[in-house]
Amino acid sequence: MRATTIHAPFDMRVEDVPEPVVRLPTDAVVRVLRACICGSDLWAYRGESARKPGQRIGHEFLGIVEETGAEVGTVRRGDLVVAPFMWSDGACDYCREGLTTSCEHGGFWGSEGSDGGQGEAVRVPFADGTLVRLPEEAASDERLLSALLTLSDVLGTGHHAALGAGARPGATVAVVGDGAVGLCAVLAAKRLGAERIITLGRHETRTAIARRFGATDVVAARGEEAVEAVRALTRGQGAHAVVEAVGTEQSMRTAVGITRDGGAIGFVGVPHGSDNGLDLGIMFDRNIALRGGVAPVRTYIPELLPDVLEGRIDPSPVFDRTVGLEDVPAGYRAMDERTALKVLITA
Amino acid sequence: MRATTIHAPFDMRVEDVPEPVVRLPTDAVVRVLRACICGSDLWAYRGESARKPGQRIGHEFLGIVEETGAEVGTVRRGDLVVAPFMWSDGACDYCREGLTTSCEHGGFWGSEGSDGGQGEAVRVPFADGTLVRLPEEAASDERLLSALLTLSDVLGTGHHAALGAGARPGATVAVVGDGAVGLCAVLAAKRLGAERIITLGRHETRTAIARRFGATDVVAARGEEAVEAVRALTRGQGAHAVVEAVGTEQSMRTAVGITRDGGAIGFVGVPHGSDNGLDLGIMFDRNIALRGGVAPVRTYIPELLPDVLEGRIDPSPVFDRTVGLEDVPAGYRAMDERTALKVLITA
Repeated sequence: MRATTIHAPFDMRVEDVPEPVVRLPTDAVVRVLRACICGSDLWAYRGESARKPGQRIGHEFLGIVEETGAEVGTVRRGDLVVAPFMWSDGACDYCREGLTTSCEHGGFWGSEGSDGGQGEAVRVPFADGTLVRLPEEAASDERLLSALLTLSDVLGTGHHAALGAGARPGATVAVVGDGAVGLCAVLAAKRLGAERIITLGRHETRTAIARRFGATDVVAARGEEAVEAVRALTRGQGAHAVVEAVGTEQSMRTAVGITRDGGAIGFVGVPHGSDNGLDLGIMFDRNIALRGGVAPVRTYIPELLPDVLEGRIDPSPVFDRTVGLEDVPAGYRAMDERTALKVLITA
Repeated sequence: MRATTIHAPFDMRVEDVPEPVVRLPTDAVVRVLRACICGSDLWAYRGESARKPGQRIGHEFLGIVEETGAEVGTVRRGDLVVAPFMWSDGACDYCREGLTTSCEHGGFWGSEGSDGGQGEAVRVPFADGTLVRLPEEAASDERLLSALLTLSDVLGTGHHAALGAGARPGATVAVVGDGAVGLCAVLAAKRLGAERIITLGRHETRTAIARRFGATDVVAARGEEAVEAVRALTRGQGAHAVVEAVGTEQSMRTAVGITRDGGAIGFVGVPHGSDNGLDLGIMFDRNIALRGGVAPVRTYIPELLPDVLEGRIDPSPVFDRTVGLEDVPAGYRAMDERTALKVLITA
């Protein structure tokens, strides 16, 4: 089959690789119908996260179950399923508590020896713990398929950020980062009842999506200027709940600067130097909490799925470019150059 | 009157200073009956926190109201009262929400121009927002007076740490720091229903108090050895709720290392380089939250007071040395040399 591989920074290829097969009785093989490129894939693309030459990539996909191991009980051949960005056994202490990202047997798509989502098919370990069945009829609805694909990562990650930040009815939420996760955090904050949602971003096409998702205010500034603008919008106090969806030092510093005393930062941007943006003295004086991390999206899928299926939330606008599998390298270029927000990959 | 002043690192004096008077109609003057020395006073004593020569010091006291301004309505001459370690107006947004430490008109005892608790009397701004009345009969009960004095800081701060860490029925709580705040965090965690409480400390007299306060396990180690010991006690997972009551880089690193995935660190140690102990990559991968800061103890007093009055909790053992006001400098020496845990000052 064909799958995307990474050989060196900026060297993405689509190559022939072995067909996946069921190796363990808890495995399934899923034929990929839709996949996509994540902002976090760009860290590997740019060489900021190390990869071995030829490693697979892609951690967001949905597709049709093609084969299942003897012990798989919740999905079967022909089912339409979505996979979260990590597999998990569904049985350990952490999985039972909902923290599937800490699963004792969990792992990442595209890690060494595993398949990636940006390919024709994927061997899925612990299929019962990992996959979630979707209604069959969704397969023929392009928009709905795109919306459902966000359950694999960005929608659940945005939800995790909004929860970590403490988005709730009546709260003022501010979102640092106008990528797909930041936009989904806006959607999630709105869904959780936030009264006011301030999005920080300077790309008009993105902030337009943020407004569509529920943002009430847009701050098109960065750094100290952004901090002042958010304070001006909040009687000088800052936002109760702040989402940090970038992961850089500057974005974390901004997040601390715009959080109201006693508020919280929900951080889901993979940390790249953001430790340095955390001034613990300020957080101590002002009782600012920090909560978040890698999102246990598997746990959130059952909660978010009905809202997506019934159209109460529609995250599909985060995709603004579609490529076929052979054009995935061009998709990376587009996201790296920020000419695309998030690239959808069709089978 | 006589009051403690700080002139330079290690240069504490007890001097004649002006008698406090009611300056504003919201002021009260309180004659100090009991005060004490805080671990955080040692940062000033050691020159690690800057002070102007002659500045007052001490932020924990209880005493008798001597005079009140015309607008003071909740306390009157002769009342026994306890003061939290910051004054607050009781009326601003933050005070009404319970975050009295972020009061728009709040301040610290011993800051420039204000009185400190380690003296004969104190001018108390915003007496209605700040002071809490205690039962008159407590004044004749030495042990109870000591216990009530901890409401001014260490008991409420320990409670804030335990809450921030997420201490709750069934949880395993670990406490980094065996000073008075760490010990009070043990007491608070027990009070909040924690099932297991692991205290980290190497001073036997202190860990003996921790056991008396509810600690079920003692880890007499530091750094990596302490991390391994806590993990060995928790099936390799770590504690659900971790209190960081020191504020150094090493203590924060230990706190991160012993927190269970999905757990939280309640931090109340005034940060002194502890930012560096926060590895955001680990916190991200394991969904470890950080919550805490300067404790709004004024808000906690009404909740904790009945338990202290009725003897359900007795924090008084944190005091292991008593001095008169003239001997406060010796009290600082004893705490600095760790021959005393916490020094009580009698009128």
